[in-house]
Amino acid sequence: MTSTIAARHAFDSAVALTFDGAGNFSGRTTPEYGNMVGPFGGITAATILRAVQQHPQCLGDPISLTVNFAGPIAEGPFTIAAQPVRTNRNTQHWTLSMSQDGIVTTTATAVFGTRRETWTATEATAPAAPPPDTVEPDALPEFIAWVDNYEMRFIEGGITQLDGAAAQPTSTTTLWVRDRPARPLDYPALTALSDVFFPRVMLRLGRVVPAGTVTLTVYFHADTDRLAAQADRPLLATARSQHFGKGFFDQSAELWAHDGGLLATSHQLVYFKA
Amino acid sequence: MTSTIAARHAFDSAVALTFDGAGNFSGRTTPEYGNMVGPFGGITAATILRAVQQHPQCLGDPISLTVNFAGPIAEGPFTIAAQPVRTNRNTQHWTLSMSQDGIVTTTATAVFGTRRETWTATEATAPAAPPPDTVEPDALPEFIAWVDNYEMRFIEGGITQLDGAAAQPTSTTTLWVRDRPARPLDYPALTALSDVFFPRVMLRLGRVVPAGTVTLTVYFHADTDRLAAQADRPLLATARSQHFGKGFFDQSAELWAHDGGLLATSHQLVYFKA
Repeated sequence: MTSTIAARHAFDSAVALTFDGAGNFSGRTTPEYGNMVGPFGGITAATILRAVQQHPQCLGDPISLTVNFAGPIAEGPFTIAAQPVRTNRNTQHWTLSMSQDGIVTTTATAVFGTRRETWTATEATAPAAPPPDTVEPDALPEFIAWVDNYEMRFIEGGITQLDGAAAQPTSTTTLWVRDRPARPLDYPALTALSDVFFPRVMLRLGRVVPAGTVTLTVYFHADTDRLAAQADRPLLATARSQHFGKGFFDQSAELWAHDGGLLATSHQLVYFKA
Repeated sequence: MTSTIAARHAFDSAVALTFDGAGNFSGRTTPEYGNMVGPFGGITAATILRAVQQHPQCLGDPISLTVNFAGPIAEGPFTIAAQPVRTNRNTQHWTLSMSQDGIVTTTATAVFGTRRETWTATEATAPAAPPPDTVEPDALPEFIAWVDNYEMRFIEGGITQLDGAAAQPTSTTTLWVRDRPARPLDYPALTALSDVFFPRVMLRLGRVVPAGTVTLTVYFHADTDRLAAQADRPLLATARSQHFGKGFFDQSAELWAHDGGLLATSHQLVYFKA
């Protein structure tokens, strides 16, 4: 970019919302974050989180978010209704829904809260990985728009293994990932990053099959200081499934900071046909 | 029980609801499932799931459930509002809230759906455990009512280790568990069982500290045939945390059938002071 005025990042355009002063936000899908059908689920989740952050009654920072993908989202405008259902001393509970033409496409709940110093420990261990600059970024599929907004350096279970490759014995994918162009990490970006893993069933089967997230939950472990320390560096991201069967599977993810801190954990249940 | 007419199980009394015909259910807490403050979170989650099941518009079986504990629940009556927000061909999305005296205590979303035959695989592995009848049931703390409704046979990380014991290096608890008296497994009971683990921070620190679940998500992997096959046998249940810090920690659980099948996975975020 040679301009002295930085252009707005495609991520910020995608999560931009206008508040009507009465609990409703309006936004619109952007082609940059398009998926095979409708927008990338991660950008929808990020936009819903952004609505809470922009609400004048919002207190504290994100603690958890659950987004349920109730139906397809068409390209174009949408409305998010955000209601602060209960505010306590340390936590605030939100109920949200996204609609298009009066039809609910997405429901969500979020917990915001204040963090304070306590005993701390991390039991999970980050996967082994070489430094990000020693791993080549992968060429990503051209028919999916949103992946262009991420720099993905796969260490295990890369997307190229979908392309008519053999079935894999495990569903684990591990990669270094960040926004492209690089962008300082914030909670909406972390939310979207927790959904960058393609459906695990495709990795196991070695082929593209119909699949879509039904429900996504993100637990935010990082406070704003840790997000600031991470800045625009790559995150070490890993995901795997526990069970596939009868049309659904789960998928759990961890997002690690450059310094080995755990920024977020995430879980989702995915619909599939195979 | 010597009566020839079986008394209703305390679990069924606790989740009993009356429908008003217009989307609201009324129920009341029962002393049998009391916790240190208010009812056991698992029974609240089970009751919310039961509301969906009893709703005349309910289609299919539980796929996922997220319950957010927004505020304390007092002993006495409560109301659950259940709204089928969107019904698709294979899934149905619900938004719910529990209130007392018009104040929301709990919010929830649920996905119900129809299961069909697909490719299946389980990647998670059940923890090693001797047969349930070779493990002695533990004596449980007398000051918490709800634990009396469960037969718990601890293999690792037992509740006795809280009692002034040393801090533990890991947060893993593994136990055989079932309702007491034994009761055939159904989705509400499975929901409650996913929350039987005491807060992991207490295991790590070796002492009782203030802690309470903020949000709980259950992914149901079992269909009704597998629930029926499990019947009233003990489940192998295991839970552990990934990260503790700044007043919150996560906790993930797996519930395994007697035959090694994965019945449900569950995740929660917990508030604590320490």
